[in-house]
Amino acid sequence: MLDPRQLQTLAAVAETGGFDKAAKKLFLTQSAVSQRIRQLEENLGQPVLTRTAPAEATEAGRQLLRHYQQLLLMENQLLQQLSPAPRQREFTTLAIGVNADSLATWYLQAVAPALEKNDLLLDIVVDDQDHTHELMRTGHVIGCVSTRPVPIQSGIQHYLGAMRYRCLATPQFADRHFPDGVSHAALARAPSIIFSRKDAVHGQFLLQAAGYEGHFPCMTVPTAQGFVELTRQGLAYSLLPELMLDDDMASGRLVDLFPGRHLDIPLYWHHWRVESSLSQALTEAMLNYCGRHLRQDKDPGAASGGESC
Amino acid sequence: MLDPRQLQTLAAVAETGGFDKAAKKLFLTQSAVSQRIRQLEENLGQPVLTRTAPAEATEAGRQLLRHYQQLLLMENQLLQQLSPAPRQREFTTLAIGVNADSLATWYLQAVAPALEKNDLLLDIVVDDQDHTHELMRTGHVIGCVSTRPVPIQSGIQHYLGAMRYRCLATPQFADRHFPDGVSHAALARAPSIIFSRKDAVHGQFLLQAAGYEGHFPCMTVPTAQGFVELTRQGLAYSLLPELMLDDDMASGRLVDLFPGRHLDIPLYWHHWRVESSLSQALTEAMLNYCGRHLRQDKDPGAASGGESC
Repeated sequence: MLDPRQLQTLAAVAETGGFDKAAKKLFLTQSAVSQRIRQLEENLGQPVLTRTAPAEATEAGRQLLRHYQQLLLMENQLLQQLSPAPRQREFTTLAIGVNADSLATWYLQAVAPALEKNDLLLDIVVDDQDHTHELMRTGHVIGCVSTRPVPIQSGIQHYLGAMRYRCLATPQFADRHFPDGVSHAALARAPSIIFSRKDAVHGQFLLQAAGYEGHFPCMTVPTAQGFVELTRQGLAYSLLPELMLDDDMASGRLVDLFPGRHLDIPLYWHHWRVESSLSQALTEAMLNYCGRHLRQDKDPGAASGGESC
Repeated sequence: MLDPRQLQTLAAVAETGGFDKAAKKLFLTQSAVSQRIRQLEENLGQPVLTRTAPAEATEAGRQLLRHYQQLLLMENQLLQQLSPAPRQREFTTLAIGVNADSLATWYLQAVAPALEKNDLLLDIVVDDQDHTHELMRTGHVIGCVSTRPVPIQSGIQHYLGAMRYRCLATPQFADRHFPDGVSHAALARAPSIIFSRKDAVHGQFLLQAAGYEGHFPCMTVPTAQGFVELTRQGLAYSLLPELMLDDDMASGRLVDLFPGRHLDIPLYWHHWRVESSLSQALTEAMLNYCGRHLRQDKDPGAASGGESC
């Protein structure tokens, strides 16, 4: 059987990025850390960490870390059942993948009660909503918020609801760049915003809402808040989640460039199929909050691509 | 001499991540794109792009891209001098590295006037403030906001001012986790927040302000807004930039755990040493805005590590 102390040491090095920092975290000497990692590697016959700065888990190392995180969750569950009396506060850290718009709007509020109650800490990794499940598949996170409706292998998923996006700009921007409406010629010249090179949503929306599939000028801004700010400043138009708007539309600060058209992005919470009160607490907190704050008028089973205009 | 059409094609593939998308952007066939890249690689005797999905520039490719961006800036300058009459709106895209806290507070407001006036688009890459200059050195960006006081090779730097951070929590959090003040025992158990594994600022602050250098439990949250939100919810304490606070301290929503102690992070704007009206416009806009909104009471020449408590 794998030595849990070796796994714990691997986790500490992967988390802190260095043998010295892991030693400090575990109250060990650095040579004890090195020795445990070496033994683990000798047992497995392959490296579990890259000897880079910071050190990172290899593919084999990540498999081990995933296994170790599942062990911790199961053990935590077991200990709670065996001794329901309050033990010394001890935090459990869960690595979670979240898309930027969820993190900027509902995510932290949704999970806050579960964190507080269960002494949970989160390592949040932000990625494009169509790619967070890759983080889970590669063992970087134990759960993720994703647009993917199908569970990944050894995982289960819950439908959370949909975030609704509208394509907005200031009235001045609309006058200057779209004097004759959202024509193809105007879309080819008006500055927009995308989150990253991986972000295909803006292009998909233009295709579906306007039949446009040409090039469009765009800024790359990797924060949800940056989208709102640049759009409010009249420097670009963009797809904004309704949850991020204050009274922008009611006050006329922003206008809808495609009135009556919107994009609903259904979101799913994926996690490993492990019986654990901790991941269950997170799941319940999210389902509870999203049931009240995300749009629930969409059948998750019917969603395949994730868009609807 | 290098064929600028080949460089333009390389830039389009690196930007869009695919030969097909680059072809669409440049109104070329995909085989024309492939041919240009092949010719460029034959001339240079080495690959300029990885054949991955998405395609990425190799080290040689990045050097070429940096060269090409400088060419564009110089040409733009020249054309403006030669024909000051307004030409057809054409956007120039500049890749810039920014730290998350700057992006969340002053950065977009500072550069907005320059973007608007010069038809500039930005590709913003967010990284830790101590690492943004690496993005510049490797040719990913043409300028960056960084804590580094020394110019990098072929670059120049301007002192922007300092962002002031305070270590804050809700009064309830302070009562629960620091009933006897910020003792080492309490710091070893109270949940804090760091931006990423690379983020050493929290640890440095604890060392300087409390002489503490042990392990501290922390969440990893890669957005500035997430820091504020989790801290306001009473789930953690954290170092927050004063620029992100509303009336949190005046209203008593957050209290200072280290009264009278703060962390000033001096920021510098680095860019390539190229005579260009565009990078000059960005520089002027930033210096102008930061002169009014960042703390200017610090001598940049004297800063070496970047911290002061």
